[in-house]
Amino acid sequence: MALDVKVELIESALREYMKIEKVPSLLKEAMDYALFPGGKRFRPLLVLSACEAVRGDLRQALPVACAIELIHNYSLVHDDLPCMDNDDYRRGKPSSHKRFGCAIALLAGDALLTYAFELLGRAFEGDVLRRLLLEIACAAGPSGMVGGQVLDITEGSIEEIHVKKTMALIRASVRCGGIAGRASLNELQVLTEYGERLGLAFQIVDDILDFGKEERLTYPSVYGMERAREDANRLIEEALLFASMFKERGEDLKELALMVLRRIEEA
Amino acid sequence: MALDVKVELIESALREYMKIEKVPSLLKEAMDYALFPGGKRFRPLLVLSACEAVRGDLRQALPVACAIELIHNYSLVHDDLPCMDNDDYRRGKPSSHKRFGCAIALLAGDALLTYAFELLGRAFEGDVLRRLLLEIACAAGPSGMVGGQVLDITEGSIEEIHVKKTMALIRASVRCGGIAGRASLNELQVLTEYGERLGLAFQIVDDILDFGKEERLTYPSVYGMERAREDANRLIEEALLFASMFKERGEDLKELALMVLRRIEEA
Repeated sequence: MALDVKVELIESALREYMKIEKVPSLLKEAMDYALFPGGKRFRPLLVLSACEAVRGDLRQALPVACAIELIHNYSLVHDDLPCMDNDDYRRGKPSSHKRFGCAIALLAGDALLTYAFELLGRAFEGDVLRRLLLEIACAAGPSGMVGGQVLDITEGSIEEIHVKKTMALIRASVRCGGIAGRASLNELQVLTEYGERLGLAFQIVDDILDFGKEERLTYPSVYGMERAREDANRLIEEALLFASMFKERGEDLKELALMVLRRIEEA
Repeated sequence: MALDVKVELIESALREYMKIEKVPSLLKEAMDYALFPGGKRFRPLLVLSACEAVRGDLRQALPVACAIELIHNYSLVHDDLPCMDNDDYRRGKPSSHKRFGCAIALLAGDALLTYAFELLGRAFEGDVLRRLLLEIACAAGPSGMVGGQVLDITEGSIEEIHVKKTMALIRASVRCGGIAGRASLNELQVLTEYGERLGLAFQIVDDILDFGKEERLTYPSVYGMERAREDANRLIEEALLFASMFKERGEDLKELALMVLRRIEEA
């Protein structure tokens, strides 16, 4: 299934799942504001493409794809808050706290995070539910994404920041697609190798694009721009190699990996 | 099992579960700061006492008791933030953001919430995991606690605020104790009736104790102090009646209900 068709699938599923009952209207509005219009939907695309790579049913992977997108967007809302990055704009419009005030933005983030877990509980059961829940909670929690954000504002090494802040949730996206698609152990291992390289490359490219703009520790500020580009290229090459193990079913995983490098050219 | 022994069980379980690997030290410190020393551990006591009422194994209910306590404490940390209630003190010591700054307090709250779900995934499986996950996510999320907090700062009616902000998580605590203790449908129904009354009484008492201190909508400011006291008393009477259906196994549920009223006398 072509990537743009997958995006449509994700958009309509997100709209469907966001029909939540008994939510105060302002909170609903703030949650929708954070989610729509979205970015490239990179993480849910990874979920669906990983599911496709292992011959899974994409429709079964949709709820976990959306749950991960909710978690990604909660992290952006909290990241933008004045006490964090203090960003006034996100995707070309005022950030959530500029639009709704800090209290509602904070609570909308909390709601998106919590609702992601509700979504999992509604859509899955048995061992698959347990595995998806652990993947996502570990990747997003104190030893994953939240931990990475703390390291980013404190004492972390660049490698540790990248692994936790960005790679963990990208790896989890790929793995969750595999788990929802009933991947074999071998397939899941290949997906994990792919996801780790992709996640690291993704953050190095982010750092390359942000270089000079912010004071935080970045990959090029530590290793120089030349090595940053080399490492990103090498990681993506390796990711492509792992994706190619799925033959033609790995085409979208390849395309998503190439999209990461294309961000540098387009910048 | 006496309530004070249950508290010891909860404290040592919380300490055990908080031995999380690979968490940045400052984040770990902030999470611990929010959790220890704790309050009365009212919600986890409800979980264990409900489990006891249905002849369940208390040790099996401990992880969900602790998960709910983590969620309660995340909500306190976020509530205290300057953009919310702007409280400088909590339980007689500086609130999390006064001690660690707003960014780390925000992230510690996010981490406590996410880790609560990880805990569930580690401790439970199968249908029990799914039911506990849904109970907690629904009670804490946009149509539960977070929704109640939004209503509290916007346009909500006092009844709707109370149901969502406080009652939902207290009812979920009681129900989760029942679910972990393999309650029958009938037993779960009685626990639910008990939990709803207890949760509503709890917030009315909170409002009575806060009356005049804050500008927010409170039960006595809407209905007068006399009716507030009457309603709290009536709700607790009803809760006691439901607890008594468990005979001597419901003693601690009764004691917890009486503790709610005792807060007025002690104030």
